[in-house]
Formats: sequence, C-alpha cells, structure tokens
Amino acid sequence: MLKVAVVGASGYTGVELLRILVGHPEIEICCVTSRQHEGLPINQVFPSLSGFCELVCEPLDVGSISKRADLVFTALPHKTAMEVVPDFLAAGCKVVDLSADYRLKDQAVYERWYQAHSSPELFDEAVYGLPELYADQLRSARLVANPGCYPTSVILGLAPLLEKQLIDPRSLIVDSKSGVSGAGRGVKLGSLFCETNEGFKAYGIASHRHTPEIEQELTGLAKCDIRLNFTPHLLPVNRGILSTCYADLLEDKSTEELIKLFQQRYANEPFVRVMPGGQLPNIAYIRGTNFCDIGLVSDQYTGRVIVVTAIDNLVKGAAGQAVQNMNIMCDFNETLGLGIVPTFP
Amino acid sequence: MLKVAVVGASGYTGVELLRILVGHPEIEICCVTSRQHEGLPINQVFPSLSGFCELVCEPLDVGSISKRADLVFTALPHKTAMEVVPDFLAAGCKVVDLSADYRLKDQAVYERWYQAHSSPELFDEAVYGLPELYADQLRSARLVANPGCYPTSVILGLAPLLEKQLIDPRSLIVDSKSGVSGAGRGVKLGSLFCETNEGFKAYGIASHRHTPEIEQELTGLAKCDIRLNFTPHLLPVNRGILSTCYADLLEDKSTEELIKLFQQRYANEPFVRVMPGGQLPNIAYIRGTNFCDIGLVSDQYTGRVIVVTAIDNLVKGAAGQAVQNMNIMCDFNETLGLGIVPTFP
Amino acid sequence: MLKVAVVGASGYTGVELLRILVGHPEIEICCVTSRQHEGLPINQVFPSLSGFCELVCEPLDVGSISKRADLVFTALPHKTAMEVVPDFLAAGCKVVDLSADYRLKDQAVYERWYQAHSSPELFDEAVYGLPELYADQLRSARLVANPGCYPTSVILGLAPLLEKQLIDPRSLIVDSKSGVSGAGRGVKLGSLFCETNEGFKAYGIASHRHTPEIEQELTGLAKCDIRLNFTPHLLPVNRGILSTCYADLLEDKSTEELIKLFQQRYANEPFVRVMPGGQLPNIAYIRGTNFCDIGLVSDQYTGRVIVVTAIDNLVKGAAGQAVQNMNIMCDFNETLGLGIVPTFP
Amino acid sequence: MLKVAVVGASGYTGVELLRILVGHPEIEICCVTSRQHEGLPINQVFPSLSGFCELVCEPLDVGSISKRADLVFTALPHKTAMEVVPDFLAAGCKVVDLSADYRLKDQAVYERWYQAHSSPELFDEAVYGLPELYADQLRSARLVANPGCYPTSVILGLAPLLEKQLIDPRSLIVDSKSGVSGAGRGVKLGSLFCETNEGFKAYGIASHRHTPEIEQELTGLAKCDIRLNFTPHLLPVNRGILSTCYADLLEDKSTEELIKLFQQRYANEPFVRVMPGGQLPNIAYIRGTNFCDIGLVSDQYTGRVIVVTAIDNLVKGAAGQAVQNMNIMCDFNETLGLGIVPTFP
Repeated sequence: MLKVAVVGASGYTGVELLRILVGHPEIEICCVTSRQHEGLPINQVFPSLSGFCELVCEPLDVGSISKRADLVFTALPHKTAMEVVPDFLAAGCKVVDLSADYRLKDQAVYERWYQAHSSPELFDEAVYGLPELYADQLRSARLVANPGCYPTSVILGLAPLLEKQLIDPRSLIVDSKSGVSGAGRGVKLGSLFCETNEGFKAYGIASHRHTPEIEQELTGLAKCDIRLNFTPHLLPVNRGILSTCYADLLEDKSTEELIKLFQQRYANEPFVRVMPGGQLPNIAYIRGTNFCDIGLVSDQYTGRVIVVTAIDNLVKGAAGQAVQNMNIMCDFNETLGLGIVPTFP
Repeated sequence: MLKVAVVGASGYTGVELLRILVGHPEIEICCVTSRQHEGLPINQVFPSLSGFCELVCEPLDVGSISKRADLVFTALPHKTAMEVVPDFLAAGCKVVDLSADYRLKDQAVYERWYQAHSSPELFDEAVYGLPELYADQLRSARLVANPGCYPTSVILGLAPLLEKQLIDPRSLIVDSKSGVSGAGRGVKLGSLFCETNEGFKAYGIASHRHTPEIEQELTGLAKCDIRLNFTPHLLPVNRGILSTCYADLLEDKSTEELIKLFQQRYANEPFVRVMPGGQLPNIAYIRGTNFCDIGLVSDQYTGRVIVVTAIDNLVKGAAGQAVQNMNIMCDFNETLGLGIVPTFP
Repeated sequence: MLKVAVVGASGYTGVELLRILVGHPEIEICCVTSRQHEGLPINQVFPSLSGFCELVCEPLDVGSISKRADLVFTALPHKTAMEVVPDFLAAGCKVVDLSADYRLKDQAVYERWYQAHSSPELFDEAVYGLPELYADQLRSARLVANPGCYPTSVILGLAPLLEKQLIDPRSLIVDSKSGVSGAGRGVKLGSLFCETNEGFKAYGIASHRHTPEIEQELTGLAKCDIRLNFTPHLLPVNRGILSTCYADLLEDKSTEELIKLFQQRYANEPFVRVMPGGQLPNIAYIRGTNFCDIGLVSDQYTGRVIVVTAIDNLVKGAAGQAVQNMNIMCDFNETLGLGIVPTFP
Repeated sequence: MLKVAVVGASGYTGVELLRILVGHPEIEICCVTSRQHEGLPINQVFPSLSGFCELVCEPLDVGSISKRADLVFTALPHKTAMEVVPDFLAAGCKVVDLSADYRLKDQAVYERWYQAHSSPELFDEAVYGLPELYADQLRSARLVANPGCYPTSVILGLAPLLEKQLIDPRSLIVDSKSGVSGAGRGVKLGSLFCETNEGFKAYGIASHRHTPEIEQELTGLAKCDIRLNFTPHLLPVNRGILSTCYADLLEDKSTEELIKLFQQRYANEPFVRVMPGGQLPNIAYIRGTNFCDIGLVSDQYTGRVIVVTAIDNLVKGAAGQAVQNMNIMCDFNETLGLGIVPTFP
C-alpha cells in the first residue's frame, strides 16, 4: 500500500481528494493537515466523510509527514505550496502539487502574474500533470504540477485542432463558466450564497491568472505563439466548468470530420468522452467524476468551429486529475479509484 | 453473475438504479425497458451513463425478460406495477417493486388511497423492504415492496423510540421536506424549474399517500394504533429528504441518553449514521449515497424529543435501498455496490 | 418631506430599506452609514441601486445625523444598536430599530438570551412593531422595536386562533424554514454558496433566540403562558420564510370555518392575504413584497390545525415592516411605498 | 385611461405584463385571455397577483376584445400571433406583438427560420420595438414587433461600436446565457427543475432563431453585411440574460474611451446603465427591472473589445420593453410604470 498525505485537507480540493482516496484500493491515507482545524477529526470538519476517514487534522510539519508518506498531495494556495514542496522532495517524497506554483515554465511569466518564486530551479523537473498530453513524462515524475481547472477544460478542447494545425492560432476566444467551488472554501463576500445564487457575471476579463497557463500549453501544441481571449464567468452551481471555445478554421471541415478527429485523438484516454454529432456536453452529466465531455460544431456559415467541454472543476479540474497523476507516477492502473459513475440528476 | 432487469429505466429511479448497478460486482444488467424511448440506447436517454451501459431500451415484455432475468426491479408507477409483478413472479423471477403497490398490508386501506388492486393475494407474501426492520424476512423473500422515500426517512427516525415505548404515540408530528426529484421525471407544470426554484411550499397536508404507509409501520413498532400529522414540503434541490419529527417524551431522557439508544439500535446497520450530540444532519452530507443520517435533541423545556433524519430520496429512498434489498435476498454482502462516498459540496 | 437616515446600510436589511425608501413619495433619505464602506457611494456597494441613490457612506456619528434626520432606521446587530438608539432619541429623532435590542419586555429574559442591556429603561416605551397587533400604540411611538423575521411569520399565523382560545396553548409546534439572507451579509463559512446550495438542515433546535420573542407575544395573545417548540431550518433560496405551525384544536372547526375566522381577523390589514380553501402559500408568491400569505388546514383525523405562513424575511420580516411602522408613526398611508407587486417567477 | 388587453396571459411573459401593468397609472387592463385557463380568475393561475387583478381568463375572441381594448399585447407563440394580429389592427387596436412574427423584414428569411407567413404585407409597417434605436418610428406605430430577449441584449451591447465603425463586422462572436424562464412556461422535459438545476449547457449552436434577428439589426447599424456566431446557453436561474460579445477593434481605443462613447450614446436612454471602468454587469443587479446594464473591456493584448450586457429576459427582454413601447406609442412618459428598483439579493 502506498502511503499518501493530504496537505491542506480542509478546503474543497482537500475533501474531494479524501472522497476519492478513501475508495482507492492501493493507497492508505497516513496524514491530513489543516492549520485551521488542527486537532479536529476530519469527519467533523466534513460530516460527509463520517465512517470513511477517522484521521485527526495535523499541523503542516514536513519532517514528521515525510517520514510517514511516500507521496504528498499539496492542496495549498500558491506561494504557500512553494514553501514546502522542495522540502518534501528533498525528504524523498513524491509530490502532486495542486497549486499554481510549478505549472508555468517561465519564471518571469510566473512572477508577473503571481509573485517572486523561491524555487524556480524545480520548473524544469516539474511535469505538467495533464495525462492526455504528458503521460510519458508523468511515469517517472517526482514533482507533478497539477493543472488549473480552467486550463484543463480549454486545453483538452483545443489540443486536437492545434496539433493538426486546423485552426488559426490568432483567432482563439474562450468563454468559460465555472461553479462557485472554483473560488475555494475561503470565507469571502463574493462567495456568499446570496451574492451568487440567481446571479451570473463575467470576472477577470483579460486578466485571469489561468491565461498564461493556457497560452503556455497551447503554444506548445501549436508550435507557434498563442494569445487568446479568455473570459471566466461565475455560475451559480456547486461544481462544473463549461468552456465554449471559438476558432477560425483554416480548412473546411464538417462537424462529423472533426468529431472523428477528436475520437481518434482521445481513443485511448479513459476520461475523455467525445460526444456523437448533435450532442453537446452538460456539466450535469459529469458531476462528481473525472470525465471531460467534449462536443463540437463546425459552422460553415462563419467558417468557425465551436468546441464545448465540460468537466467537474473539483475532479478532472483538481483532485481527480491529481489521483490520475498519482496512478501514472506509481504505475497503478490509470483509472484506479476513479471509476465513479456520474450522478444525475 | 446474477442477471437483473430494470423495468421502467427512463425515470429518475431508473437511472439511479443503473448508476448503482453498473458498479455492482456480482450482477449483470440484462435488460432495460422504456416505453417512451424504445429502441434508443439508454446512454442517449441519459448521457451521464455514456461508457457505462450500452443497452437499448426494450418494450416491457414479461415473457422475454423473465427468460433472461433472475431478478427484476420494477420502477413503474403504482397500478402499472401490479399489472406485471405477478407475471414476473409466476415466471420465476424475484422482484423488487419500487412502486406503492405491495407496501400496504390492508387491501381496504390501499384501495382508499390508491385504486382497486388486482393481486391482493400477494400482500401477505410481499416483504416491506426496510432492511433495518425486516432483514430476516428479506433473506427469503421472492417479492419485496421497496418503501416510499418519506416513510423510510420517518420510520428510521422514530423506530428506536417507539420500540422502547419512550414517546406518546398520539403526539407524533412529522414535517418533511423533499427535493424535486421526488416528484419523478414526469413532465408537469409543478416540476418546472421556474415553478420550484427560489420557491418553497407545503403540499398534500393531511392527505399525502405516504401517510398510511408510515402509520402501518409505526403501528407495528408501537404495538398500538398510530395516527400522525405528516406534512410534506417541496424543497428546491435535486435530491434529499429531511424529516423533522416531534414527539412527547413519556420519560425524562437527555439528548445524550437518546443518542446512545439510537447508536445501540443501529450499531449493526451499515447505512444508518447516528450523529454525535450537537450535530444535526444535512442533506448535503448524504447526497448520492444510501445513508440515513440521524440527529436528535431532547427538549426538556417542552418535554419533547425532536429527531431529524436525512436521506437521498433516490438512493436510500428508492434505488439504493432496492439494491440493498437485492443484496440481502441474494445473500450478497449487504453493502455491495453501495459503498459510495458522499460528494460534498 | 420626512428626512430619514439608514444606519447600517451595507447589510441586506440596509439595501432592502434603501430599495423601498427610494420609491417612497413622502420621505427623503438624508444619510446612509457604513463603517466598512465609509467614503464609498452606496451604489458602488450595491450596483443594483445605480441611478436611484447617490449617497456616500458616512461613519455612524449620532450628533451629525440627528441634526439632519427626523427618523432613523437602525439596521445594526443587537448590542451595537443599544449603543446609539438612546442618543438618537435624546437628540429628538424617532427610531425604528431593526435589531433585537428592544423587542423583549423582560430584562432578565433579554440578558439570558443575549447579553447585558445598557438601556432597559426604554423597554416600556418601545412598541413592538407588528402593526397587525399594535397599530394604536405605533401611531404615537417614538421608539419602535421592529419584530424578528421568524416571529412575524409565526405570530401572524397563530394570533387569530389564540385570541379566540381555539387551540391548546401547550400543544404548539412551529417548524420554520428561512432563506439564506436571514443570516445576514456577514462573511462566515456557513453562508457560503457551496455550504448551503443543494443542502438543507435544521439548526438551533430548542435554542434559537427568536423563541422568547415568539413566546412573549403569543403569551400576550393567549393570556396564558406559552411554551413552544420552534425549529428553524436553512433553505437554499435567497429570500423567504415559510412557517408550518401545528396546534391541537380545542373545538371541532372545519377548514372553511377557520379560514373565515382568519379572513375576518385580517380584513383591514393590507399586507395579510388569507388564501381560499385548498390553497397554500409559497414563498415564490410573496417575494420582494410586504405580504404575509396564510393558508390552513383543519385535520379532523388528528384534531389538529396546520397553519402555513409565507413572508419575505427581508421585507415583512425586516425592511418592509419597518417602513410600514414608519408610515403609521408619521401618519402616512400605511401602504405608502410598499405597493410592490410580487415578481413571479 | 388607456384600455389594454393581454392576450396569452398565462405564460411567464403574460404574468410579467400583468405585474407591470397593474401598477401603471395611465392604463386599465380590460381583458386577459388564456385558452388553457378559460373561466379561471388570473389570480388563481398566479397567486402572486392576488389583490392586484381579479380578471377572469377569457377565450381569445378578437371581435369581443377589440371592442373594449385600445391596445393589445399579444403574448402568444409565433404563428399563433400572426393568426390574430391583422384582425386586431383591422378592428382599430394598436398592437404590441411579443412573438417573432413581425420582427424580420425579409419574408424569405422568416420562412426559412420559422414557417410560412400569412401576413407579410405588415412587415413594412411593423416597427422593431427597440426604443434605443427606433424611438421616432415608435411614436406613430400601429404595430410594434417587440424584440427577442437575446437580440435586445446583443444589439444594445454592439450598437455604439457598429454605428461608429470601430469593430470589424466579420469578427463578431456572441456568447449568451439565459435563465430558464426564457424557454417559457410550456411543460417540457428540458425545463424540469432536475434537468436544469446544477446543470449548464450550450444549445442551438449555429442554429438559434434569434440569429437572423440579431444579424438584421446589426447589419442595419453597420451598413454592411453582418454574420456572427451566436451561442446561447441555459443558465440555472429563473431570470436574466448575460451576453458576452467579442469583436476585433479597428482602432486602438482604451477601455475608458469606449466607456465614454457608450455613455454618450445612451445618455438620454433611461433604461441603459453604462457601468464605470472596472465594473461588470451581473444579472442579479437588474432582476425584475427594465434595465440593460453594460460593462466593457478593451484588451490591447489581443486587440479585441469585450462587451458584457445584462438584462432581465422577462422585462427588458419582453414585458418591460413592451410597456416601454406602449408608453412611446401612446405619448406617455417612457418610464411610466417601469420605475422598479432592482431587488438584491
């Protein structure tokens, strides 16, 4: 049994990691940490876990944890993550970091969008944890930078088109909508029920921190510089991201041809479901699971393709993908612990 | 592998049965029926099932189905169920009937609340499928009448008190609140999003059909005639029932004493979670699972006990309990296929 | 034009007062205060008010405000209110206080449920601002204690029965459900979208602070000591309280007879709508308005009456009732500024 | 007093017209029709209207209604509307038609997207009822084609830019999100609570019927042929449309310059609120009102402008705009009956 620690267990990503890990047959959770709830059983923090996990929240002590854990999930805010990740690595643990701290490859870009970085020497080693792109590197990775939720939904939707040079790289517009859990469990006015329920808004237009992450990965796929418009919106649901992606087609391709291309590209990817023609994704159909559902339409009237993707921001956009990465790093079956059937309604 | 059929697969109870059954290691789904969607793959009716179930909806042909199935789940409206259940039994199938048709033991009561019954001779044989009360009879049952959602939530909350004669049987008041899926997937005005969202109402006061079912079972437990006020309300959520039950205490008992009683009563029941003192259930903590969470307060100021229970109406209130019953009938581990961890948030 | 100040304008009660007051033809808002948003225009705090109110948030300076205002609405937390209300009165302002500080008549009860009180000498003078009970006293009041939201919904539902001694005063059970705005705009974990949406729970069983307020008023109506069970629940909607009230009937009365009694009792009350037989209230039908809708059923099978009331907790349960009280205190038409038609859906 | 009839009163547009009209000081509602609820008081169909409107639903008899009404609102489905509009006009009534039947100016386009048209001779006379564009023609109109909800939100967002030739007309992409009431009160599976709540999807990509309506009006403004991508999405809220519009800027303009342009363009329009720099609209801030809130960002990194608009689909997108049109046609103050303050939260 692999021993794993969940560092930062009292956020929504933390509880989601625990939900998945308690059912994983090859691991044992040896430690959960929470500064805020130190000393409290995690099943009192989250009564949903009652009967599944009796661990008591510990303080974040790298020395103590690294003695017990083979692999550590760091579900911490950016900047806080970089303060402990190098120490866990030095102590011999594998790390799947769910923060933004090791996703960007260019220190200057990181520091422009976030703040100064204390361990940029790890940028080269860190593998961007999107298994549909980097499965080979992940197998031998010591440090995985788990992708952002929005970037996961966007990159999977555009990769097949960019890899085949089918779309104009200067034409990309991505209009994304995320459920409220994407803002985390931090206690802030904008996350209150009455501020979000029955509301809907765009935010962070032309300034969201996931933009450079998306651009980095799409640039890698397109092999040319990508600048895009990325507009996130706040959706009054608990979970789910739907991204609607627009691009000018460079060649005339029908909806059916493009669906076929996507089906071939993702034929061996267990968590991507390409929908047949005429069907479009709905976040209700992937809730609680690690799937990315993809639908698309080629609009010959305007010469554009519209790709729509749906993921659960807490699963394929965070905890589920982290477990998928762990599975690959540890040579488990990639789907272990992730065979969750979507709950509808 | 046990061969099972899901008859009436296109409702919310049907899709929930399939969600659970596709992950059950000891069964094989051999047939799904839907009059409305005959000929359509069930994963087009419910794209959530894509990748999990490829079966095509069949018409309801007892002869054909009973040749293939060892056990049949009938997820049909009352009256429609009784038209096929006797034939499935005669053809040698076991049946878990999710309708109301075999829950009441008194034909006159059934016919007063529903309509004429065509097979009352089965009333004696049918076992009321609440495993926490009838596990022994269920082991050898051929026909199980799966309980109603509201009754499940109420009976589990009051059973320990009535069995010990701790409450005045004439004092019971039950105030229940159910999510909209309890009304089924039928297309009616009252189930529209805009008619229910941001709304809340009581309905069926002193006239809901689950009243006689609750009274029958509570009467059996109390060994005296029970009449109660049962008031259902429509809650703007997809899933979940919370029942708040009030009763006059016949003896002075503290909250702690009563919690201990409940813990002992349900010590061997894998799906009842009695919450420690000071904690109360929330439908968010049992969503998608077969749990019944119970919390209670003894109010010494008024001499009453208030018991609050939470279930998922589609799981412990329908499909999950049906699978639990199947497990018992077929001598599987009672929790097989039902080890789902609650998704929060 | 009456000059009014809204003290504590940045909460949900504050913005609701402003929504109503900007359309009131006989008043002028001369001042809004907010410690947190001092210096910011209120229409930036609440963009909904853009075009309706340009005032800038001031600090709470009684001396300055009382020179400009004839009447002050104090929309402050309890304890904070009592620190300024006596000074506003001393400076010659009328006060409608929306906190709990002057609602209870018994200092010992207040101090048991809240904390020490610094101006109990005002308890006698303060009029409990439920116009359907105290219109006469309100006409000449200098200080009005605006009722709590839950108490408003409960007292209006039980008053006609208690005044006529039709129900057993020891039998009262009230099961209430409130939208999330009832918890205020304070930034706390339990009010986050993801903690409440798709959830439902009871809270404060046998210990909610509105209990003594309800009991005080019902005791006054019944002319005998009332102890009741009051159970609040948290409803995943922005606004609305539905209270389901149970009582043992002392006389056999039909639903129609009781509806007639309620219709007569409230015939001259512009904001109480007694629903015809067979109809029950829904919070969706009174949203945004000062109405209290009442429906009821006499259950001859159990000998109980079930009364269901619906109010908007921010309007009849707070700001609307405060304006209704102001209208009465200032000899305006009672409905001035409150003729809002419910928005459905 | 102007006598008005509401034809098709039992849909969401119908009840919204009544909500607004019962508070309008210059009109009298003389008739409401509903085939489905003939003979029933409208306040039983919509208990929200109790105390405001006692009219009984009539059948749709043009002869009878036109004798009593000066102006008729036809809130009927397309095709049904064209069956009665010519007769109302012939009988001397003014008509505000809320269907799509007289919005398009080109019969071939209408018949391609809808079906055969029986009175295309009225196309020239019908005025497209967007007061911010057509106030002059509306003053003398006999027949007003009330705009679609999506087109209203899009045209108001792009008009200032197209009028000044600031954006590339081939570059327009509009990503819109609408609340469920936009689908009407018809009883269909896709509008059920459980099918939409906690869900989100795109629909009608490259095929929504509002596309030609948007293109017609934008083409008129741009004075060149407009083809755009318009993608509607279904938002799990009762009301509200948010449209996010993307266009390539032809000149380098800052956010501040563009906001100033919008402010000037709409300086005399009482229902358009251009938000100051840094602020973006939220459907929660215009709920229940006739406002269109507009925010925008000029993204100099990609050379695009992103305009975000928010309206209430039932008010500015339907009933409110219809009343605004009536006010202009009848020489009332344009804002009469529409001075509703947004309800937040």
